[in-house]
Amino acid sequence: MSDLTIESVEAIPFAIPYRKALRFASGEVRTAEHVLLRVRTAGGLLGQAEAPPRPYTYGETQASIVAVVDQLFGPALVGTSALDREEHRARLSRTVGNPTAKAALDMAVWDVLGQALRQPVHRLLGGYADSLRVSHMLGFDRPEVMVAEAQRMIDEHGITTFKVKVGQQPYTLDVAVVRALREEFGDDVELYVDGNRGWTASESARALAEMADLGLTLAEELNPADDVLGRRWLVQQCPVPFVADESATTPAEVTREVLGGSATAVSVKTARTGFSESQRVLHLAEGLGVEVVMGNQIDGQVGTLCSVIFGAAHRSTSRRAGELSNFLDMSDDLLAEPLTITGGRMAAPTEPGLGLRLDEDKLTRYRQDR
Amino acid sequence: MSDLTIESVEAIPFAIPYRKALRFASGEVRTAEHVLLRVRTAGGLLGQAEAPPRPYTYGETQASIVAVVDQLFGPALVGTSALDREEHRARLSRTVGNPTAKAALDMAVWDVLGQALRQPVHRLLGGYADSLRVSHMLGFDRPEVMVAEAQRMIDEHGITTFKVKVGQQPYTLDVAVVRALREEFGDDVELYVDGNRGWTASESARALAEMADLGLTLAEELNPADDVLGRRWLVQQCPVPFVADESATTPAEVTREVLGGSATAVSVKTARTGFSESQRVLHLAEGLGVEVVMGNQIDGQVGTLCSVIFGAAHRSTSRRAGELSNFLDMSDDLLAEPLTITGGRMAAPTEPGLGLRLDEDKLTRYRQDR
Repeated sequence: MSDLTIESVEAIPFAIPYRKALRFASGEVRTAEHVLLRVRTAGGLLGQAEAPPRPYTYGETQASIVAVVDQLFGPALVGTSALDREEHRARLSRTVGNPTAKAALDMAVWDVLGQALRQPVHRLLGGYADSLRVSHMLGFDRPEVMVAEAQRMIDEHGITTFKVKVGQQPYTLDVAVVRALREEFGDDVELYVDGNRGWTASESARALAEMADLGLTLAEELNPADDVLGRRWLVQQCPVPFVADESATTPAEVTREVLGGSATAVSVKTARTGFSESQRVLHLAEGLGVEVVMGNQIDGQVGTLCSVIFGAAHRSTSRRAGELSNFLDMSDDLLAEPLTITGGRMAAPTEPGLGLRLDEDKLTRYRQDR
Repeated sequence: MSDLTIESVEAIPFAIPYRKALRFASGEVRTAEHVLLRVRTAGGLLGQAEAPPRPYTYGETQASIVAVVDQLFGPALVGTSALDREEHRARLSRTVGNPTAKAALDMAVWDVLGQALRQPVHRLLGGYADSLRVSHMLGFDRPEVMVAEAQRMIDEHGITTFKVKVGQQPYTLDVAVVRALREEFGDDVELYVDGNRGWTASESARALAEMADLGLTLAEELNPADDVLGRRWLVQQCPVPFVADESATTPAEVTREVLGGSATAVSVKTARTGFSESQRVLHLAEGLGVEVVMGNQIDGQVGTLCSVIFGAAHRSTSRRAGELSNFLDMSDDLLAEPLTITGGRMAAPTEPGLGLRLDEDKLTRYRQDR
């Protein structure tokens, strides 16, 4: 066992353009301006993970992540053992917010641990499965374009589960899309919807009623959770699990929203809760008796790898397809070997740690700090 | 990394007499008739843990544990990798009940993992601390005898936290004991009470009122949780956290009892939820915002070692003293080096795995199957 004392923590901002802008009810994204976090130990191990700033959801920016890691989180971790995750959590929790920075550090530490222990992290976390079924997100567009996109995903990757972004005005635009998808693909595909809070409670209720024959399996954040009573009224009548995503990003928020009747399922995102805190969210959801789905924070390939590792590790996260395909929209990425989706599934890496191998030339090209 | 495939699972019944009978409101115990579980891997590793049958609490007997391991749980685990804890959990959950058998198997598997990964299990679980403060249980007796016992624990082990067993008729017997302890030791000791459901709700309320000046820090299972409204009424007026122990032994029970107002704290016992399920209970309790205490299932030294490992590993279990001293009442044990309590604390083992070293001569002497 090499010396696991953390010697340095580095935050590297980088930018990679998307092939096309991603559009949904809460905004759009044109360039992945993420931060690569690197944790180095005295024994020479390098742990890495990716933090995606989402100012509209968590208030973090690329610059804020770099700053909080350089000034607070890095110094808090240096000198501790990579094994002491509970101590890391205690120290980082003194600073409120900054979820993706904290999450990426936790996952970079797990990368170190997996390498030190010579095991892939998905096996250390629970080892339930070696791969996860993939769900693909379909962003706003005309019905025929979205049908064509779904067909391409079926043909190229074997993906048959689709999360349809809804929340447009009027809601009938979205209903038409979902109906077109169902009519084109019949029972061969699983369909669910994510509103990103774009509708009111009553619009959501009307849309759900008009889609009642379309066999949806989940409905996510159709209206804002802060419309407290409207949301509760909607969730009570929703015939499928109603997923809390941006409204339940911490264990306490999960408890409040589920007990408050604002959700009957929870989205788990490693981008915001890492592995250690995602286990807390998962165990809480299990204990409360609500279902989970592995969500996507518009992750790059590094972040996607983290999602599949956590999702494959546990039984309850393996029951549904995980949202793992957003990286396909990026024009390039940092991994030496791009991730692949085959037969509708993504494999968890078999190498020790997170199994990340970065292309250093690409990092040099995309990093913004030199 | 050696081959971690589980090759065999063995259940060895053994019996060790207590120095004196342990008495409390729900019964008494004269002999530790436990089961040692052994998991062997193809690579030659041996994982071990202890299951304590508690028929009055879980319905298990020594014979039922041996039988369910021999007939169901052993065959379910053989052929899997020791890493695949989520798969183990899925397979074992097909059989209801049998909590201490399942828990001991989970901990024996963790023993294997720690050895294979060359790390003490408390560090793999979170690594928060290297030791845990110890709470000692004082069983029914006359006030002067219990004061003397507490004094002995202070003198010999530096223990200053005492869990006083209450629930006698009339309740004034118990109030006199707690008052005698506080008068003797002043503010130098922490005192809390465990009723093992021996009182009614109204007796409990009267007792709490009469002990209001005695600075108790917790009250556990004073009356039965199945007296649903009486319990809720009692918990609402209880000025300290009211601990659910035998009424909340699974995550779903924790959720029901806490949400039902029957408890405001949870006892975590590795004897019944192992490490993997204890993390679920812990994370659920944290997410619900209720405190935890590491409880004792009248564990032997092997079981006590498991409790200190889990308790030291996590921040929230380290906040209170753990109930780790019941083994002192046994006339002998299986460990080659007996556990020690020094300065009121017990150290988590520093050896890989659970750090168990058994005295094989003692096992030969106490085992009941040869």
